[in-house]
Amino acid sequence: MEELYGIVGQMKAAPGKRAELVGYLLEGTQGMPGNLAYIIAEDLADPDGIWITEVWRSKADHAASLSLPSVQDAITKGRPLIAGFGTRVETRPLGMGEA
Amino acid sequence: MEELYGIVGQMKAAPGKRAELVGYLLEGTQGMPGNLAYIIAEDLADPDGIWITEVWRSKADHAASLSLPSVQDAITKGRPLIAGFGTRVETRPLGMGEA
Repeated sequence: MEELYGIVGQMKAAPGKRAELVGYLLEGTQGMPGNLAYIIAEDLADPDGIWITEVWRSKADHAASLSLPSVQDAITKGRPLIAGFGTRVETRPLGMGEA
Repeated sequence: MEELYGIVGQMKAAPGKRAELVGYLLEGTQGMPGNLAYIIAEDLADPDGIWITEVWRSKADHAASLSLPSVQDAITKGRPLIAGFGTRVETRPLGMGEA
C-alpha cells in the first residue's frame, strides 16, 4: 500500500467564533476523495483552539481536495473567523486504530 | 450522544528507535473498548517525532484503557525507547470525516 499522508494542525478562531468556524469545517470536509480521516477537535484548555488531524491516501489526494467546491466554500466562509495558525506538522500515518 | 474525548500528543523516540517504538504502540492499541480512533503518525520533518491523535467515546474509556494488559505491555516495552514528550492537548472531537 502506498504511503499515507497526514497533517496535524492547530488553528485559532477569533474570540467567540470557534463554534461557527468548526461548523464550516465540518460542512466542507465531508466525502473528500482519498480522505481516510479528518478529525476536528476543540482544545479543552484554549477556548479559541482547534486541532485538526488529517489522514489521506496520498499527498496528491490532499492537494486535490483544496480545489473541491465544498472545501473552497468552507475556506471562504471560515477565513474571516480564523485569528491564526499554530503547530502544523506533515506526517506519515502508520496506524488508525478503530478509525 | 455524550461528548467525545480526545488527545493530540507529540512523542520523541530515542534516536534510531522510532520504528521499533511505533511497532509497540501499534501492537498495544488495537481493540481498546471505547476507542474510536488512535492515529499514530511519524513526523516527516523530525526523524524522532511521533504524533498521536486519539478519539474516545468518553474520558473514562481513555482512563480505563491505561490498565489494559496490551497497553501496559506497550508502555513497558516502549518506555525505554521514548526520549521525551512535547505537545499534549486534551480535546473535544466534533467530527471524524471518513474515520
